Amino acid sequence: MQGTLLVSGLGLMGGSLAAAATAAGWSVLLHHRRHEPIAEAAARGWGHPCPDLSAAAGADLAVVCTPVEHLSASVRAIAAATGAVISDVGSVKGAPCAELADLATRFVGAHPMCGSHLQGVGNANPSLYRGATVIVTAVPGNPPAAVALVERLWSSLGCRLVRLDPAAHDRAVASASHLPHLLANLAARQLTPEAAPLCAGGFRDVTRVAGAGAELWTGILRANRVEAAAAARAAAADLAQLAAMLETDDAVALRAWLDGGRAGRARYEAAKSP
Amino acid sequence: MQGTLLVSGLGLMGGSLAAAATAAGWSVLLHHRRHEPIAEAAARGWGHPCPDLSAAAGADLAVVCTPVEHLSASVRAIAAATGAVISDVGSVKGAPCAELADLATRFVGAHPMCGSHLQGVGNANPSLYRGATVIVTAVPGNPPAAVALVERLWSSLGCRLVRLDPAAHDRAVASASHLPHLLANLAARQLTPEAAPLCAGGFRDVTRVAGAGAELWTGILRANRVEAAAAARAAAADLAQLAAMLETDDAVALRAWLDGGRAGRARYEAAKSP
Repeated sequence: MQGTLLVSGLGLMGGSLAAAATAAGWSVLLHHRRHEPIAEAAARGWGHPCPDLSAAAGADLAVVCTPVEHLSASVRAIAAATGAVISDVGSVKGAPCAELADLATRFVGAHPMCGSHLQGVGNANPSLYRGATVIVTAVPGNPPAAVALVERLWSSLGCRLVRLDPAAHDRAVASASHLPHLLANLAARQLTPEAAPLCAGGFRDVTRVAGAGAELWTGILRANRVEAAAAARAAAADLAQLAAMLETDDAVALRAWLDGGRAGRARYEAAKSP
Repeated sequence: MQGTLLVSGLGLMGGSLAAAATAAGWSVLLHHRRHEPIAEAAARGWGHPCPDLSAAAGADLAVVCTPVEHLSASVRAIAAATGAVISDVGSVKGAPCAELADLATRFVGAHPMCGSHLQGVGNANPSLYRGATVIVTAVPGNPPAAVALVERLWSSLGCRLVRLDPAAHDRAVASASHLPHLLANLAARQLTPEAAPLCAGGFRDVTRVAGAGAELWTGILRANRVEAAAAARAAAADLAQLAAMLETDDAVALRAWLDGGRAGRARYEAAKSP
């Protein structure tokens, strides 16, 4: 027995966490504002229904898996009803950690770098987290034992742990995740009706995540809007420079620009297989 | 027996074509400026070596699979040495078809919408073309029998045929293929070293084609530079607008922008499964 884990918010991320944690030996309590996801997760054997937080008073650890705009309220409700260490899976860390600074003895931010373009507990996947990198945004006010408990959860699911401060996290995910998501949508937006029947594997892969969870992503991007805007501005300038290279038929600059793409992909490949 | 097909240029596209056409009952002649790719394709049973074009004098059809900047010279050499109808697999059609206008009775442009981030005959794939869309850019000077022969080749390989004039082709592939390729490279270029260890499936898929064949793509983009530059300019402006939405925290506009990405992906999905 690893301990008792409350999973609050049973969508794709929460459902997958409940499944994986159950398999890893945690006793899982299933909480959601609606009953149906609780029933669906419980029917799959991913934990015990816990519609009322008062029944989770003795939980060791709680992980909030709601959309980022509901995080703060959910954490405060759990802090009031239980004695658990509280963490989350949110894609943005700066603003939420600042907003919850008064709860630093209880709340330790975390962000597993994985997901799906599908949503909902019905698409939950017990192996979603296996091999994923989890960023733990420990801050000075967090008790070491609380950080260690959060890290023990993710280690028990086969994740690789990285620590970053919240601001560094938000800057890094703007580059690793938020900008690529925006560019996938950009490629899809720019597809003309005449071109739609002609797309092949390149378009398919570049735009795979386009259109996924527009409401969810609106919340993520707004919560990280300073870093996401800076990344979008820099990318727009880089793309305008590329357009100028094409307009002037500057073959050397064009080739160097494409080689920069190859170098970026190589940075990713090298970091992936250390 | 479908007829005799000369494949000139045995890289990924040409090697895959030789393999598929042999399997479909064509008698294939293998031509390349170097001997090694001919020997490799012949050893795999994908046709008969034809190092000298004079040995292909009686071919019914020739398909040039060289990089786009060598297309014109290859077509003229084959036109001089053989009586074959000549086609190609090039990614750009306007400039090449204009340059070869004097050979319109012999040359019919074509562009199969498939490929790989891998290169070379060693990565050739006999099923690369199965199910692909092939654009045939027939022009008024092309004899109907020549166009029909080119279309019969691709039909025999399980391809779906579309006809477009060369200018419409170049505009459409800038949207369906060239801009997505540029945005994949853009996402990779913008990856910071700090973010590289944090990338997940979104980055992986968006950038899969980044860094593939930089020399080949330099040629493709230069040959279609007017349309590619226009697509890049439009995308840069769209991305700058998105940055402004983030800077002003305009949630309604941001959500609508992401919904536009969803709509673009839906246009692709709808066209793919008619």
